[in-house]
Amino acid sequence: MEIRSKIWLEKDGEPVFGGGRRALLEEIEKLGSINKAAKEINISYRKALSYIQSMEERLGFKLVERKAGGKNGGGASLTCEASDFLGRYKMLEEGVNEIINKKFTEAFNVRNTG
Amino acid sequence: MEIRSKIWLEKDGEPVFGGGRRALLEEIEKLGSINKAAKEINISYRKALSYIQSMEERLGFKLVERKAGGKNGGGASLTCEASDFLGRYKMLEEGVNEIINKKFTEAFNVRNTG
Repeated sequence: MEIRSKIWLEKDGEPVFGGGRRALLEEIEKLGSINKAAKEINISYRKALSYIQSMEERLGFKLVERKAGGKNGGGASLTCEASDFLGRYKMLEEGVNEIINKKFTEAFNVRNTG
Repeated sequence: MEIRSKIWLEKDGEPVFGGGRRALLEEIEKLGSINKAAKEINISYRKALSYIQSMEERLGFKLVERKAGGKNGGGASLTCEASDFLGRYKMLEEGVNEIINKKFTEAFNVRNTG
């Protein structure tokens, strides 16, 4: 038996950040393009833009910088605030997973064989 | 901004126990009846029985004891193993919530105003 968990952030009862939005920002960071990032996580470009816009509105700071066109059609990168936010969230998620597994083992006296 | 979380237990990739099943067992404990418990959490009696059966199969022990009919149409109660399991799960969930809130405050230096 294993414990599974999911965390996400809310503001005024509305989701602000979670697994899907985390993946989107990570792919933009890696691929340097909103379009490529959207393809990678199987959402439309339009959906990706709407995620970014709603996250920026709810968090109150800019997350993605879009560069003007050019030979490769421009690109996108994370702002410093977005990188910082993403780093803190990843740290939080890892810390939470670790502690949850520990608490589970304590509560049920089992070894995680999964 | 607040952190939200959800935990559940799986065995071989199949869900074994989580919020809904926890509520069902708690209501059976409180109300002494599978039928009343099912109504309380808005699921059908049939669904409640199927939840109980699949939990018992996956956990490998009996959870609910059904008493024979009588004036009030019998009733149901949790087995000792089920009470013990439920107690551990509740402790786990509370411990996890507490630690998640703490980790969140550490990671984002925010006060939970929610």
